[in-house]
Order: sequence, then structure tokens, then C-alpha cells
Amino acid sequence: MLDKVLRIAQLYDFYGALLTDKQRRCLEMHYLSDDSLAEIAEEFQVSRQAVHDILRRGEQLLAAYEEKLGLVERHRRDLGDIAAVRAALAALPDGCRERPETQKAIKILNELAER
Amino acid sequence: MLDKVLRIAQLYDFYGALLTDKQRRCLEMHYLSDDSLAEIAEEFQVSRQAVHDILRRGEQLLAAYEEKLGLVERHRRDLGDIAAVRAALAALPDGCRERPETQKAIKILNELAER
Repeated sequence: MLDKVLRIAQLYDFYGALLTDKQRRCLEMHYLSDDSLAEIAEEFQVSRQAVHDILRRGEQLLAAYEEKLGLVERHRRDLGDIAAVRAALAALPDGCRERPETQKAIKILNELAER
Repeated sequence: MLDKVLRIAQLYDFYGALLTDKQRRCLEMHYLSDDSLAEIAEEFQVSRQAVHDILRRGEQLLAAYEEKLGLVERHRRDLGDIAAVRAALAALPDGCRERPETQKAIKILNELAER
């Protein structure tokens, strides 16, 4: 279940802007705030079944966008490469690693990895 | 006009997968193969006005996806940062720049920039 939540949170990060307001709000309440279907149903004045359907539709859309654009996978690969560059620079002998040029490179890489 | 073509080619690269087959094919013929509206109209057996509408709709969709997801802008910023890291490493004194750790870092950065 945790895997599923993390997966959806990641997809949501990349593609949430392409969903409707209602889909976004339902996914946020369910996966981020951990609200129950009953609580969400009350908020939207619909049945629990309707909430279930909205959530499933939102999840399907997120998965379909990833299928077509592959941004999550691409981001994962980019982060792996950035980590490999950082590891290579970290392995430099002190005299090279502590130079301002190397420190500047590491600083930018850290920012890139956190973006 | 060249600016517009480059802009659409870039948006197409990122979001083309979200268009319909017909939108994709029209945009490719018009912007990549430089076919005239008349030639595209003949290929699809529709009026030139219809081709014009399909192209405009496709362009609007690409712009709307960028408005929501901002991938082209993000990619542009990432490339700028990667270039800054490469420049910092290129400015290292020979003894540090030529070390295998630095060369490995540069190789990965080059791959990242071309992805």
C-alpha cells in the first residue's frame, strides 16, 4: 500500500496539473491527507462509490500520462546520473575536491538534484 | 517564423505524445517536412481550412500543456545548470581536470545534456 501511495504521489507531482479540480482534490484528500472515502464523500456531497470512481479515474489518467510522456522515469534516470557525477567528484583527492571550481560544481548539482 | 517553428518543434518534442494521430501528422508535415497546407489537405482529403484548424488546435494544445506542466522551461533551466557544472570543471587546473574522477563526471554530464 505504501508503494502505491508513493507511486501516486510521484505521478501526481508531475501530472496533477492535467487533472480536473475535483480529481485533484479527491486524490489529495485520499492519498496526502489520508481522509476516508466516507469523509471525502461528505465533503463533495456524493456517494462513496462516486468517490471511488473519481479516484480510480484520476489514477488511471496519471498512469496514462506517464505511459505517454515517461517523465517520472526520466526524472529517476536523471537523478541517478546526477548522483553518479556527485559521487565521482566526491572521490577526488582533497586538493582537487576542495578547489572552488569543484565546490561550485557540487553546489549546482545539489540544487539540480533537489529541483 | 523560424522562432515559431523552433518553438513548436520543441513543444512537440515534449508533448506530441498527447496529441491525436491526425494532429501529430499535420504538425509534422507542416513544421518538420515543410509541406504546404494544400499538400496536407490532399493527403487527408480535407479542405485547406480544415488543415489550418487542425494545426491551430494542435498548437494551442501544445501551448496549454506547457502552460500547465512547464517541461520545456524546466528542461531549458536544467541544461543551463548542467552547462554551468561543465564550465566549472573545465576551469579546473590540468592536474585536477585530467583525473579519471573528473573525466567520468564530465562524461556523464555530456550524456545528460544530450538526453
